[in-house]
Amino acid sequence: MWSWASGKGSSEVARKRSLDGGPGVAPLILDHAAHLFYSKGYEQASIRDLAESAGISPSTVYHHFENKQEIAYQVIIRFMRDFNEVTIPVMRNPEHTALSRITEAVRLHIEISDKRRPELLRLRGFRSILSEAQGQEVTSLELAYHDAMKGLIIEGCESGEFFTPNATLATMAVLDMLNGVRSWFSQDGVLSLSEVVHIYTVMVHKLLAS
Amino acid sequence: MWSWASGKGSSEVARKRSLDGGPGVAPLILDHAAHLFYSKGYEQASIRDLAESAGISPSTVYHHFENKQEIAYQVIIRFMRDFNEVTIPVMRNPEHTALSRITEAVRLHIEISDKRRPELLRLRGFRSILSEAQGQEVTSLELAYHDAMKGLIIEGCESGEFFTPNATLATMAVLDMLNGVRSWFSQDGVLSLSEVVHIYTVMVHKLLAS
Repeated sequence: MWSWASGKGSSEVARKRSLDGGPGVAPLILDHAAHLFYSKGYEQASIRDLAESAGISPSTVYHHFENKQEIAYQVIIRFMRDFNEVTIPVMRNPEHTALSRITEAVRLHIEISDKRRPELLRLRGFRSILSEAQGQEVTSLELAYHDAMKGLIIEGCESGEFFTPNATLATMAVLDMLNGVRSWFSQDGVLSLSEVVHIYTVMVHKLLAS
Repeated sequence: MWSWASGKGSSEVARKRSLDGGPGVAPLILDHAAHLFYSKGYEQASIRDLAESAGISPSTVYHHFENKQEIAYQVIIRFMRDFNEVTIPVMRNPEHTALSRITEAVRLHIEISDKRRPELLRLRGFRSILSEAQGQEVTSLELAYHDAMKGLIIEGCESGEFFTPNATLATMAVLDMLNGVRSWFSQDGVLSLSEVVHIYTVMVHKLLAS
């Protein structure tokens, strides 16, 4: 999972813990940063706003993160790692049929994207503030997810459950459809999330039907 | 079509023409602005860069447009009006079957989005620089296109050509799929544009199949 302290010696970690009040402070900062960037905008949100929101001092924020850009990157990367950690094993599980795996993948994609919307919705805008190395890490996580979905579609074609004229483009189409949901879905809308999941499941099944 | 001079008296238009060297200067400025914003980024591109690119003086640019923000808005709105003007009559044409209309709509959507990519690719980023009134105009053009697609899907369901559990969500899914193409399609890639059009046509037909 997320490992902000990885690579640090245990004595250094112990020293930090005594300074910052426990190992949960960095994730707490990221949670508040995600909500603040979402509600106020990345450019507009200051480290001071963030500290106030999290109920800590600005110096505690700087104790954990170099600057605001680093915080934004960690918000993105933590979400993407969590997302892949949950979804990829489901898509790759050889004990289930391709149809049941894609059914579960559609549900997870839509549900996680809704539940963790503040971490995700501004991601496209955030891309421009990432360094080259950070951008490459984001791309590699996107590719890992894409490859798992493509692998699942190919397996479904091989087993006769699916048909598509092109597995790569079918992957793009499915992911674009699913990613689109968060741009318009609202808990206050006409449809519940589970209704949306059901309708998208039917559509993805039809798109891939043999 | 695009009508930057609409609402102005004919004598004023005549005066402008004598100043700016012809009625084609404003569209020319928008063409160069689209390419400049695309290659250099909106923030980085200056009116001076734009004038140089178009081979005119900065004062000629200001003669036609108030500022850079107004130019960006006109780039967006001109594209959207042209796009709707071509696609909506095709989708609403009662002389053709729903299947043949959606086939043509898929082709037009992908081809126009590729051909006029500089005007379109940064559109999402541009949204944040628009005034409220400008944003509403963009939204109304998006809605007109969405409504034409949804109307076509409903007609196809009524005629028995299509089936979908929810016409609104099917519209979102189809538009998200089609909009996604421009984010990855390259003329230098493995597939030609006509191959991509063919594969997406098959996928949209399957998604909507009765």
